[in-house]
Amino acid sequence: MILEKQQAKKGIITSAVRSVAKEENIDAEKLAMSIAEGKSVIVKHRDSIKAIGENLTIKVNTNIGTSPDVCDVSFELKKLNRACELKTDTVMDLSTGGNLDTIRKKIVNASSVPVGSVPIYQAVIESIEKHGTIEALKEDDIFDVIERHAKDGVSFVTVHCGVTLSSLDILKKKTRKTGVVSRGGAFIVSWMALTGKENPLYSNFDRLIELARKYDLILSLGDGLRPGCLADATDNLQMSELLTLGRCVEKARDADVQLIIEGPGHVPLNQIVPNVHLAKSICGGAPLYLLGPIVTDIAPGYDHITSAIGGAIAGWAGADFLCYVTPSEHLALPTIEDVEDGVVASRIAAHAADIARGNIQAQKYDESMAQARYKRDWHQQENLSINPFRFKKIRSSQKIVSDEVCNMCGKYCAMRLMDETMKKVGL
Amino acid sequence: MILEKQQAKKGIITSAVRSVAKEENIDAEKLAMSIAEGKSVIVKHRDSIKAIGENLTIKVNTNIGTSPDVCDVSFELKKLNRACELKTDTVMDLSTGGNLDTIRKKIVNASSVPVGSVPIYQAVIESIEKHGTIEALKEDDIFDVIERHAKDGVSFVTVHCGVTLSSLDILKKKTRKTGVVSRGGAFIVSWMALTGKENPLYSNFDRLIELARKYDLILSLGDGLRPGCLADATDNLQMSELLTLGRCVEKARDADVQLIIEGPGHVPLNQIVPNVHLAKSICGGAPLYLLGPIVTDIAPGYDHITSAIGGAIAGWAGADFLCYVTPSEHLALPTIEDVEDGVVASRIAAHAADIARGNIQAQKYDESMAQARYKRDWHQQENLSINPFRFKKIRSSQKIVSDEVCNMCGKYCAMRLMDETMKKVGL
Repeated sequence: MILEKQQAKKGIITSAVRSVAKEENIDAEKLAMSIAEGKSVIVKHRDSIKAIGENLTIKVNTNIGTSPDVCDVSFELKKLNRACELKTDTVMDLSTGGNLDTIRKKIVNASSVPVGSVPIYQAVIESIEKHGTIEALKEDDIFDVIERHAKDGVSFVTVHCGVTLSSLDILKKKTRKTGVVSRGGAFIVSWMALTGKENPLYSNFDRLIELARKYDLILSLGDGLRPGCLADATDNLQMSELLTLGRCVEKARDADVQLIIEGPGHVPLNQIVPNVHLAKSICGGAPLYLLGPIVTDIAPGYDHITSAIGGAIAGWAGADFLCYVTPSEHLALPTIEDVEDGVVASRIAAHAADIARGNIQAQKYDESMAQARYKRDWHQQENLSINPFRFKKIRSSQKIVSDEVCNMCGKYCAMRLMDETMKKVGL
Repeated sequence: MILEKQQAKKGIITSAVRSVAKEENIDAEKLAMSIAEGKSVIVKHRDSIKAIGENLTIKVNTNIGTSPDVCDVSFELKKLNRACELKTDTVMDLSTGGNLDTIRKKIVNASSVPVGSVPIYQAVIESIEKHGTIEALKEDDIFDVIERHAKDGVSFVTVHCGVTLSSLDILKKKTRKTGVVSRGGAFIVSWMALTGKENPLYSNFDRLIELARKYDLILSLGDGLRPGCLADATDNLQMSELLTLGRCVEKARDADVQLIIEGPGHVPLNQIVPNVHLAKSICGGAPLYLLGPIVTDIAPGYDHITSAIGGAIAGWAGADFLCYVTPSEHLALPTIEDVEDGVVASRIAAHAADIARGNIQAQKYDESMAQARYKRDWHQQENLSINPFRFKKIRSSQKIVSDEVCNMCGKYCAMRLMDETMKKVGL
């Protein structure tokens, strides 16, 4: 297989690079160079090609998947479709309930955008199901599951390479308020604690590299030790993991494997910018993929909003890829409506940050909406709005007295009044 | 009447200052000094006393009120109650439909928090209703309406003192994409354009000061020329108005009148911090009251989120008072659910900014939630959450298999797993 990064390094502009460069209105040579340097990645799934990284628009990921208690594949496929309709850039299948192979295949098959996964979930769950314990999990099992995912057409996998025995030593000091909150992180920490062995994704990182090369699989280096509350943010544990990920990036640099770095989590507003800059600096400018950041712990039911705040600031500071968070985070498996709210909130954050980063296309989009609003062209406003379904729903649920205005100000619409006045005084 | 600011200047610690200082866990003398300097204000309504400004927690305002097309007082009173339940700090009655005197009295009477208003609405509407035109409005009418509001117990009024004939000259150049989007601003600009006269709230600012002294009424200097889209942000018109407001602040400095400065509006992420710093610098550090800022124009239906992003950054940068924006902004008069979403989104922004500003109480609140979450104490999480009603609704709508976890991860809950593992290995 000829790897995307290999070709970029040779200065070859692949059709994938050409097409996204055109879509993003950037120079294809520059994009190829950025891919060669590991500062951008190309993620593909059939016809859907996305570039994530330096100078690109910020992308949004949607997590779907079953849980042990709520396991309905058709429900997850509905979420997938809704997320794609609302223009998610990627989806991740985080299923942990039901037949994981079947579910993954169905999601990959149905998805119109690249699919990511977290193979350690399946590896651990199969170990528990077969042998009753996590510690029965063998090193080979982990790599076998990763290969299964790659073969099925998964485009990127989260691998928690930074969770090591030395992390366990720090964890033992119990300085954290909420310990380990990443499911993958908890699986690996538990396995290490129970077996006394080093995390194979770290100790056998070369094998991971080999697998990634074999399938041109993107490795998304997970943050299994991300803070689960504001008080734990930017602590020793989180920073140690980041430094380990930085070493992994160095090791993989010459292997032509595409890498993404995952980041926190729960982070106070004022620590987001330094977190983004640190991650970029430690990891050689690799594309940064953030979950949230959630900027306060007190808003369960609204974590799409706490994340949109954090994501916008992070994106502005340089994050490249935002994982959505839904209103049901910390409470339940999301509903279709939750998925909808989550995707839109993340897209708002990404777009607001794109504008702040000086992306001309993003700015022009807002200017078009401003123009439609000024003209009170409701049809055009609906077409341009981030979720036309929602726009229509709100406007059509209201008594519309005049087609020219909305019923918030009605005949006292400022824009309408200014129009009239200016006409009257001949301006 | 002995004015709150007069007493602060004399070094007298009033009971109002003492009580809010205690509530905010700050020094009463320092708060009094800040009020004397015009950097904080005390807003009162019966037993409800709020301080807004320097070193204080960021406050949230809820707009309610009828429109010409949707005029139902009981509906507005329901919104008021819901906003108060969700801990709004103030409400503003922006009614423009029905009997405005009656509606205002009912709202002031029913409100458990201080009430603000925008008297120019009523002045103009009465002119249109009586005489058929805006230009029939007399200078005295404006001040009469303001006095009526003060007599009824309104605690603060928005007065657009910075919209002047010189603004009209800039407007004539038509450099803006969306012109004037403030209702009050459009009323005053139209009146000036049609009569050729200067804005009385500017030319007769002394009369306004007299009225404010008479009733210890807080003047909230409105931004009638705020940008209505990102492309119009931080432009000549907006900055000219801000400079005029700065001169008003100087003029009022010795009159012992409490002042607030209102700010935009639609502002790109990267222009929010400079906007806050400019407003603070030009207006002598007066408390800054922002609407939004909305960080993208393309999300009608989600402007509570676009505003929460902007509000959090603005609060972090020094804004003191956030006016909520609801999901129906730009589309319709808000429903009860819209009010709920708007209040919570603004409170999230304010709280996230409080934490970033180093407020210890705010940080401790999040630590309590983190602790409850770590213990999987669902009852305590509900109590602590920003909207316990929503928390309960989401959790109770789901199949709960184990009381110990939620159905997002179920038995694979990271925190539960870590507990088990640590116990097993004796840590």
